[in-house]
Amino acid sequence: MKRTKIKQLFLEKKEGSVLVCAWVRTNRAQAQFGFLNVNDGSCLANLQVVYDAKLANFEEISKYRVGVSVQIKGNVVLTPSAKQPLEVHAEEVVMLGDCPEDYPIQPKRHTREFLRENAHLRARTNLFNAVFRVRSVAAMAIHSYFQSHGYVYVHTPLITCADCEGSDQMFKITTLNMQNPPLNEDGTVDFSKDLFGKQSFITGSGQLQGETYAMAFGDIYTFGPTFRTENSNTKTHANEFWMIEPEMAFCDLEGLMDVEEEMLKYVIKYVLDNCEEEINFFDQFVEKGLKKKLTDLVDAKFVRISHHDVVDILLKSGQKWEFTPSFDDDIAKEHERYITEHFNGPVFIKDWPKDIKAYYMKVNPDGKTVAAVDLVVPLSGELMGGSQREENLEVLLKRMEEMHVEKDGIDWYLDTRRYGGCVHSGFGMGFERLIMYLTGIENIRDVIPFPRTPKSCEY
Amino acid sequence: MKRTKIKQLFLEKKEGSVLVCAWVRTNRAQAQFGFLNVNDGSCLANLQVVYDAKLANFEEISKYRVGVSVQIKGNVVLTPSAKQPLEVHAEEVVMLGDCPEDYPIQPKRHTREFLRENAHLRARTNLFNAVFRVRSVAAMAIHSYFQSHGYVYVHTPLITCADCEGSDQMFKITTLNMQNPPLNEDGTVDFSKDLFGKQSFITGSGQLQGETYAMAFGDIYTFGPTFRTENSNTKTHANEFWMIEPEMAFCDLEGLMDVEEEMLKYVIKYVLDNCEEEINFFDQFVEKGLKKKLTDLVDAKFVRISHHDVVDILLKSGQKWEFTPSFDDDIAKEHERYITEHFNGPVFIKDWPKDIKAYYMKVNPDGKTVAAVDLVVPLSGELMGGSQREENLEVLLKRMEEMHVEKDGIDWYLDTRRYGGCVHSGFGMGFERLIMYLTGIENIRDVIPFPRTPKSCEY
Repeated sequence: MKRTKIKQLFLEKKEGSVLVCAWVRTNRAQAQFGFLNVNDGSCLANLQVVYDAKLANFEEISKYRVGVSVQIKGNVVLTPSAKQPLEVHAEEVVMLGDCPEDYPIQPKRHTREFLRENAHLRARTNLFNAVFRVRSVAAMAIHSYFQSHGYVYVHTPLITCADCEGSDQMFKITTLNMQNPPLNEDGTVDFSKDLFGKQSFITGSGQLQGETYAMAFGDIYTFGPTFRTENSNTKTHANEFWMIEPEMAFCDLEGLMDVEEEMLKYVIKYVLDNCEEEINFFDQFVEKGLKKKLTDLVDAKFVRISHHDVVDILLKSGQKWEFTPSFDDDIAKEHERYITEHFNGPVFIKDWPKDIKAYYMKVNPDGKTVAAVDLVVPLSGELMGGSQREENLEVLLKRMEEMHVEKDGIDWYLDTRRYGGCVHSGFGMGFERLIMYLTGIENIRDVIPFPRTPKSCEY
Repeated sequence: MKRTKIKQLFLEKKEGSVLVCAWVRTNRAQAQFGFLNVNDGSCLANLQVVYDAKLANFEEISKYRVGVSVQIKGNVVLTPSAKQPLEVHAEEVVMLGDCPEDYPIQPKRHTREFLRENAHLRARTNLFNAVFRVRSVAAMAIHSYFQSHGYVYVHTPLITCADCEGSDQMFKITTLNMQNPPLNEDGTVDFSKDLFGKQSFITGSGQLQGETYAMAFGDIYTFGPTFRTENSNTKTHANEFWMIEPEMAFCDLEGLMDVEEEMLKYVIKYVLDNCEEEINFFDQFVEKGLKKKLTDLVDAKFVRISHHDVVDILLKSGQKWEFTPSFDDDIAKEHERYITEHFNGPVFIKDWPKDIKAYYMKVNPDGKTVAAVDLVVPLSGELMGGSQREENLEVLLKRMEEMHVEKDGIDWYLDTRRYGGCVHSGFGMGFERLIMYLTGIENIRDVIPFPRTPKSCEY
């Protein structure tokens, strides 16, 4: 007999004999019968299994502890309950793997901190089972959106030797003996002996390589891990995280915002459609109103407004600010919060002062701002950042000079402007930020299976 | 007017006015009219654009060089040609970005080596456009297979501090100054000052973490970049590549082979269905018979045979071998080739001598072999490797001792056997190997956008 997954049982709601393999979540034994609640990871809901004294090993079963893995043969019986539409009446229950009493995941409330210290076991709780299933489904939603819109998925390299983006923020990688590295005559490390023949790093972005592929395929996206060395212990920083970086040829800033808005709505709708149980769980136990927040966003028309006009609104608001809004400066968390409340929905803030933005962003006709755009959403702040790229080689070179960006090592990038350059745009979205938005979870450590943060690299 | 992608034009085959943005592939100008062949990356096929002397800038257009980006307004006209079902009669042609004469990608045959040295431009050729579109579509096929079968996609960490898998094969990563690292009193590097407070690496596998998630979700898969420090310059080695590692609870070796076979057929069929143009191109220009090879595989029943019986066949074959087949040894490339020809199809080789396999593989009742399996396919050799895992903690610990595997640092892994362990299995598939199989391309450097190999880390 083939094993049936519990999810399948709930989908089919069909009486008949089945074979189920799963882990015991609770076991309530009485004198003549007992109830096992078991979960096989295929869905959030547990399956109730009724066993009785007619089973030869009834005494044994009634002692099964939480965490034990079991194989159950029995009959599906439909029950007149909305919450639990069926149960299985066991004809045979066999223990596959025992679980001692010191099993850390007991059927009680554990703190998030405790579960972080048991990251290899926490996916066995309802909360993390829901979080990491949403993470998986959201990843699929992203691939599904871009592929169905004709984008090509590009695996840009993680190892890089170009330190143009500021090697201070990148991990160095090496195959040299760090204790006794080979040295040059002047006493510096001889990286010609390293695997790549020069000093190499792990990168924080695939954008530049992505742009070269957009000039071949029109529309491309990346989706992969990203690394930052930031020594920062906050709820929103991790040293390893995943990022999506789409890049579109023949696309200006307005077109970019169209894509961002359509993509985000698609992903949220996909998760709402495919993770109803999980979203309801978060709505009940993690963030009250989460489901409404998400459905509202799907129906919202995103506001598009310039950085200048945002600062204007902030200054005229009469609010007391910790950070005074400025036409020349970045926008603080408190400002983002105010502006999304002001418009009661997601806001694209565009046309930023060029001095606080990256060199590759398109300089606007005013000469002072660049065609950059940040998307801020209610409650969570910035979700995506993007820009139209400077396609004019002369202007780009001037900007690189102004901002002290090394040209050496990225001449290949400039070729995108030399050979058939065109208006193009792209954005980046931190995947964990999206998952935090989708689940209501407030600490990035709780949406990454095995998080890496300063002084913390377990498992 | 909104831009229409060329792929859309070919799909719809509808007359009417359109706006197209694309790059010039060829330009044949005559006295009174001319033909631009343009490509926008949305599909392999070029669009033919007819322009004539009625256009005010006719002289200019006729001088457009290869690589120029253009915007074309015109009318779609259906043509009675199977090869080119439509063309556009231009009403306006505007240059968006010029392209000088030194543009490396000219409409002629370039060597693969030359194109590797122009990796940032090579996706603009038909060959690499086809290769990297197939790579993208195959990635989607993999996600699609696993997600539709209820697997959870897990992002296992790349940074690791556990050097249990042999840190010699891993890149070291650090934020320390490699020139003058902080030292302990005994003169060794003081890694407590490093970002994670200890020495850290970039990993070559997510399997162990994946197993812990299989014990929560039942079925999981990983799909991400992987790193090896191998100083090996061959056609099949790269230091950065992508890998898929599924792991299934309640699944034995036979179940594992079922999954591998079904998944591979699904992915190949998906690519055949979605990349017909590209597969035909490879069949014509890269590997004659490729399409038949792929369709044959989809229809094949994979053979399942033990390592022992394979060696038996090899020894009795009467062939002269460079490497003599042995019951205790690995199987060489020449043996793989012979055995797939012998069975005229894909072959699962299972139950390998335990001494040449990893410690975590399930020891068979004979005590001599493990429940490992390699899938070898005609022409390409090994495509996947997997095993049933040793779920018995005692046996696993004994194997670790025998094979000198450090227990320190992976006690969490052993918890999968302590707490509700069960029969489970998993496999790994190198994504590049799959792409080489799908395209007929023989050098791994030509299926990775920006390959990293010893002494080579450009872009």
